[in-house]
Amino acid sequence: MRPDEARARLAALGYGEEQVEALFAHFDDAERRGKAGHGYSRIEWLDREMRDRIDPEARPERLEAEESFERWHGRGALGYLTLDAVVRATLERPPERARVVVAEATFPTGMLGHYARRLADGGLVAVLTATSPARLAPLSGGEPLAGTNPLAIAVPSSDGRPVVADVSPSKATWGDVLRGATPPEDVVPFGGDQAHKAFALALGLELLVGALTREDDFGAVVLVARPEADPVPALRAAARGVRLPGDAPTGP
Amino acid sequence: MRPDEARARLAALGYGEEQVEALFAHFDDAERRGKAGHGYSRIEWLDREMRDRIDPEARPERLEAEESFERWHGRGALGYLTLDAVVRATLERPPERARVVVAEATFPTGMLGHYARRLADGGLVAVLTATSPARLAPLSGGEPLAGTNPLAIAVPSSDGRPVVADVSPSKATWGDVLRGATPPEDVVPFGGDQAHKAFALALGLELLVGALTREDDFGAVVLVARPEADPVPALRAAARGVRLPGDAPTGP
Repeated sequence: MRPDEARARLAALGYGEEQVEALFAHFDDAERRGKAGHGYSRIEWLDREMRDRIDPEARPERLEAEESFERWHGRGALGYLTLDAVVRATLERPPERARVVVAEATFPTGMLGHYARRLADGGLVAVLTATSPARLAPLSGGEPLAGTNPLAIAVPSSDGRPVVADVSPSKATWGDVLRGATPPEDVVPFGGDQAHKAFALALGLELLVGALTREDDFGAVVLVARPEADPVPALRAAARGVRLPGDAPTGP
Repeated sequence: MRPDEARARLAALGYGEEQVEALFAHFDDAERRGKAGHGYSRIEWLDREMRDRIDPEARPERLEAEESFERWHGRGALGYLTLDAVVRATLERPPERARVVVAEATFPTGMLGHYARRLADGGLVAVLTATSPARLAPLSGGEPLAGTNPLAIAVPSSDGRPVVADVSPSKATWGDVLRGATPPEDVVPFGGDQAHKAFALALGLELLVGALTREDDFGAVVLVARPEADPVPALRAAARGVRLPGDAPTGP
């Protein structure tokens, strides 16, 4: 799928120009970063499997807006659009020190590094997680208890090249299963004989979001803060050209 | 080492009763949870290798105390004692919604789940990370760029049994190296052929702390928030008796 086709497919779902551009920006960023499971393939998935989540008229709502705490609700919008709205609102009115943003009914959210990077590009330190259908079971067996909940951490840099760590606790992403690139059996905690660590991370993030959201739906939690220091340039110097998390394959 | 010997060794370092009990509570908790590398063995290590960090008269200081943001400084106290002071102060005056606590010059901090659990026992959702000497290098080689920075997430529960995920990105803890239980070569990102994920997590946490602290020393970042929901009991029911992260080997 080419960019113009991707935009046309999103418009065909009923979305107006603003929503098309927000959705396209996420999918295109994922494609460019080699995360095809979060890229254009998801547009076909929206069309095929997510029709009940698609309401082009739906708009996320900010329910509470304190200086250091906000609560949002997806109100039927795709999670991609709710996180996009959270990012735009945060960059418009950044916190003096730090802010926690809880987003209710926010699914699907895709490549969290996309949103965290935009916040870091705007000068904010950002930590972001989001829940999704339970697919990870304890290693000792039983029902899946946690989604493939990723954790994204983005730190701005005075050199314009933020570091963006975007870690999934799952060996394979569900998106790669959807596009047929990996079998569903690979959607297990990563780490082999230490996969209990990745499972613990997934479960901790699951409960963190579950405890901070009021509704029994997927959600997201974002922490943004003003940096007090600029550690990235020294780290890049120490790394001597080694590719850091979030750097594009051909450079950041 | 038995508990009374542990207390006596801490007192012999010059600490008063309050500090001895705070340090002992951490080391004893680690022993009981089978994390010997964070347990009594660290008392010998303090005596042997950390004399320059031991100033029994030092007291951590709270530099800023807003409702939703605090900054602390270790002021020469061991990181264990700074985090203990942060936990006690937070439980005395919990946030209405959420608070970020940044702790400067805070090292060593030990088993972060100990502090996160105390916050959850007090009814707060807690997320906690802390930095330590760089020991994890990128998988492609080069200098170590990140500490074995753990991430602890604790979520309270109406059944009195919080879930505490306390995940180190390192295959082995440095404490297990210190006590001779594992070779230093095992202090690498965990995950085998996906160890880049654990390295990304360690580096993201390193830069998060580095960006939020002003001084060029190790530090800690704590997020505490009031829960809006109580997801743990339903999760324990779904787990059907499977041991969850942070549960003691013989039960939570």
